Amino acid sequence: MQAEILSVGTELLLGEITDTNAQYISARLRDIGVFVYRRETLGDNRARLTEAFREALGRASLVIATGGLGPTDDDITAECLAASLGLSLEFHEGAWEDMLEWFRIRGREPSASDRKQAMIIRGGIPFANKAGTAPGQAIITGGKVACVLPGPPREMVPMFEEHLLPLIRSTFTDLIPLHIKNLRLVGLPESKVGEALRDLMDSPNPTVAPYAGQGQIRIRIAARSEDSSEAGKLVSAVEAEVRKRLGDYIYGEDGDTLESVIGEILSRRGLSLAVAESVTGGLVAHRLTNVPGSSRYFKMGMVAYSPAIKATCLGVPEEAVRKDEGVNRETAASMAAGVRALSGAKIGVATTGFAGPTGGTEREPVGTVFVAVSDDDGTEVERYVYGGSRTAIKEYGAGRALYVLWRRLSKSNRKRRDQAEGVDR
Amino acid sequence: MQAEILSVGTELLLGEITDTNAQYISARLRDIGVFVYRRETLGDNRARLTEAFREALGRASLVIATGGLGPTDDDITAECLAASLGLSLEFHEGAWEDMLEWFRIRGREPSASDRKQAMIIRGGIPFANKAGTAPGQAIITGGKVACVLPGPPREMVPMFEEHLLPLIRSTFTDLIPLHIKNLRLVGLPESKVGEALRDLMDSPNPTVAPYAGQGQIRIRIAARSEDSSEAGKLVSAVEAEVRKRLGDYIYGEDGDTLESVIGEILSRRGLSLAVAESVTGGLVAHRLTNVPGSSRYFKMGMVAYSPAIKATCLGVPEEAVRKDEGVNRETAASMAAGVRALSGAKIGVATTGFAGPTGGTEREPVGTVFVAVSDDDGTEVERYVYGGSRTAIKEYGAGRALYVLWRRLSKSNRKRRDQAEGVDR
Repeated sequence: MQAEILSVGTELLLGEITDTNAQYISARLRDIGVFVYRRETLGDNRARLTEAFREALGRASLVIATGGLGPTDDDITAECLAASLGLSLEFHEGAWEDMLEWFRIRGREPSASDRKQAMIIRGGIPFANKAGTAPGQAIITGGKVACVLPGPPREMVPMFEEHLLPLIRSTFTDLIPLHIKNLRLVGLPESKVGEALRDLMDSPNPTVAPYAGQGQIRIRIAARSEDSSEAGKLVSAVEAEVRKRLGDYIYGEDGDTLESVIGEILSRRGLSLAVAESVTGGLVAHRLTNVPGSSRYFKMGMVAYSPAIKATCLGVPEEAVRKDEGVNRETAASMAAGVRALSGAKIGVATTGFAGPTGGTEREPVGTVFVAVSDDDGTEVERYVYGGSRTAIKEYGAGRALYVLWRRLSKSNRKRRDQAEGVDR
Repeated sequence: MQAEILSVGTELLLGEITDTNAQYISARLRDIGVFVYRRETLGDNRARLTEAFREALGRASLVIATGGLGPTDDDITAECLAASLGLSLEFHEGAWEDMLEWFRIRGREPSASDRKQAMIIRGGIPFANKAGTAPGQAIITGGKVACVLPGPPREMVPMFEEHLLPLIRSTFTDLIPLHIKNLRLVGLPESKVGEALRDLMDSPNPTVAPYAGQGQIRIRIAARSEDSSEAGKLVSAVEAEVRKRLGDYIYGEDGDTLESVIGEILSRRGLSLAVAESVTGGLVAHRLTNVPGSSRYFKMGMVAYSPAIKATCLGVPEEAVRKDEGVNRETAASMAAGVRALSGAKIGVATTGFAGPTGGTEREPVGTVFVAVSDDDGTEVERYVYGGSRTAIKEYGAGRALYVLWRRLSKSNRKRRDQAEGVDR
C-alpha cells in the first residue's frame, strides 16, 4: 500500500512559506500503515499539475494533494485532478450549502467567485471545511483514492483527520497500523541514550528511535502486527525494558511536557512555586505559565536582571552580587530562597548566568548557568556551561532549571511513595 | 533559467524530520534570479533516485539534491547522480585531505567507512564541509549544473552559500538578481495593509507583498532589472510610497525585531525599563532579554500571577485586584506604575488578562488583555480581546505590549525630534 503527496502552490516554490502539510500527512499515514514513497511540490501550472496527478495515480494507490482550492483563478488543483481522470467538475448543492452555512455563522456574504469552490468532481465526495470556505474532495476510482485538501494547515489537519482518514481506512481494509508509544526523557545527552539502547535500536519490530531537541529526548517505540493486541504487547515489553534502563530520566509520555508534568505533581500535592530568573530572562516563568491552570500553583516570577534588584528585592548578599557579576552558587541559592520568602511559595527556583554573546568573567565564561531549587528540605545548586547563541543558552538554562525542579519533585515523590508503601531503598 | 530540487531521505517520507532545505534553497535561488519549478522528495532507493536525477536533468538547467551523503550504506545520493550521468565515482585526494583535517581538529580518527565520502564524480568539483564530514559535490555537464549537498541544514547552508552560489553565478552569467527590501510593521491588521497598498501590490516590478505572522507584518519590496542601480531606485521609490502611507506603523527593516528596535531607542536615550506581567506570564521579559545588551536598560520583570502578589509587591489597590480577578484597567495601570516605582526604572510596562482555556468573567472573557505603559508623562492603558489558544493569547498579548511601548517611545521620539528641528505639528 503506497501513497504519494503533491504540494501545490507557486508560493512554496518561491520559498515564501514552509510546507508542513507534507510532513504531517507522511507521519499520520505511516501510523496507519501507509508508506509515502514520493512527494512532489508543484506550482499553479495546469499542464504540469495534471500530468503530475496522472503519473502519481499510475504509481500509487493513494494520492493526496494539498493547496490550490481557493476561489481565485490560480486555484486549479481540483480541476487538474478531474482532467487527469478525464472527468468533469459539477456544481455540488451539498458543498455549497455547507459553505453558505460557514458564511452565515460569520455574518458574511459569499462573493460570486466563491461558487467555484463548490465544484466537485463527478462521482466525488466533498469534505466540509470547518476552518475556511474551500471544501476538500476525494474520488475513489479503480480501487485507488485521489484527494485534494486545502493548503492552510488549520484547515487541512481537521479535514484530514475527520474525513480522509476514515475514508482511507474504509477503502483499504487490510492496513496494519503502527502501535506507538513515546517516552520523554530529560537530563541525559543523546549519545548516552544511544549507548543505553543500542541493542533495542537494532530491532526491526518494535523499532526504537530517539529524537533529540531543546535539551530533551523523545524515544519512539513502534510495533506493527496483524494482531493489534500483539503489537501492544511488543511495545509494552520494550517500554518496560527502556524504563528499567533509563527510568530515572523519563518524565512523561506522548503529549506531556516537562512543565505540564511539573504542574501535575504540584497540583496533586498542593504545592506552590515561585521563580527568580536572571540569565533565562523570564523564559522559565513563560514555560510554566503555558500550562492551563498554572495560576493554581504558580505564585510569582521575578526577572532580577540588575544586581541592585537581586540585592534589594531578593535579599542576595552584596558580596555575592559583586562576585563575577552575580554569576555564582551563592547568588543562585539566595535568589531561590529569596523569591520563596517573598512570595510565600513552598518551592523557589532560580537561574543566574551569562547568556552572551559578550561578557562573562575569567572564572565564569559566557554560557555559564547556575540553577537553584529551594524548599523545606534545603537548597540545591548546580552549574553548567552551555555553547551556542544567546537564545540557545537561555533555552538550555530554562530547560535545565525545569529538569532540576522535576528531579527534586520526583525524588521526594519517590521518597513519599516509598514511605507509603513501606519500601526501604 | 529553471531549477529542480531533490530532497533525499526515507526519514523525510516517514514524516520524522522537517525539510527546511528545500524552502531555503528555493528562496535563495529566487533572490539571484533562478526559478525553482519542481521539488521532489524521495527515499534512499537506488532505482527511483537515479531515475529522478535523469528526469530532472532532462527538464532543468540546475538540479540540486540534499541528503544521503553520509558514510553508511543507505547514503547513495552521489552514486545515483553519477549513474544518471553514466559516470563513475573516483576517490578524490583533496576531498579526503579536507576530511582528515576535520577529524584532526577534533582529535578524532576517521573510520573505514568515512573513505566512501571522498568518492567524487569523475570531473566533479568537491565542496568542503565546515560543519561535518561529508563533502558536497557538483558537476557541470552539457551547460547544466548538477549538485549534491548534505542534509543537515547547518552543513548545507554554509556549503550552499560559499561553494554552490558562486558556481551558479559563474556558470549562468546572465542571471538577473532581485533587489529586496523588507519593511516591518506592527499595530495594523493584514487587511488594512492590503487595502492601503492594493495598487502597489498589483505592480509586477517591483513586487510588493505583505507576510503576516504573530501580530506583525513584513512588507517585501522586490525589483528586478538588468541594471542593478535601476533595481535599487525602483525599490526606493516604492519604499518611500509605503512609508508615506503606513509610516506610523513601520518599526524597522530586514533583520530588525520589535524588541531590538525598542532596545536601540532605550539605549540611545539612556532610558531603563521594567515589566510587570500577569497574562503574558514572563513572555514580554523573555522577548526583551533575547536582545544582546538588554541588561543595560532592562531592570526587572515581575510575573505577578496571584492577586496577593499584585497587591503586596506592586501596590495594586485591593478593590482593583478583586474586580474581575484583577483583569481591568486600574490593575494594569497600577502594575505598570508599581513595577516602575519598585525597580526605579524610567518606564513601566504591564499586562493583565485571561489566557484561558477556562476562566474569564462576564465582563472580561477569556482572551481579554489589558496593556499599560507608564512613564514621567503618565500612564496609558489599552484593552484588547484575542481569540485562539492559551499560548496564542500570550503571544498576541506580549506582542501588543511591545507595540504599545514602541509606539509611546517613537511618539516621544518624534516629539523630541520635532522640538529639535523646530517642527510644529
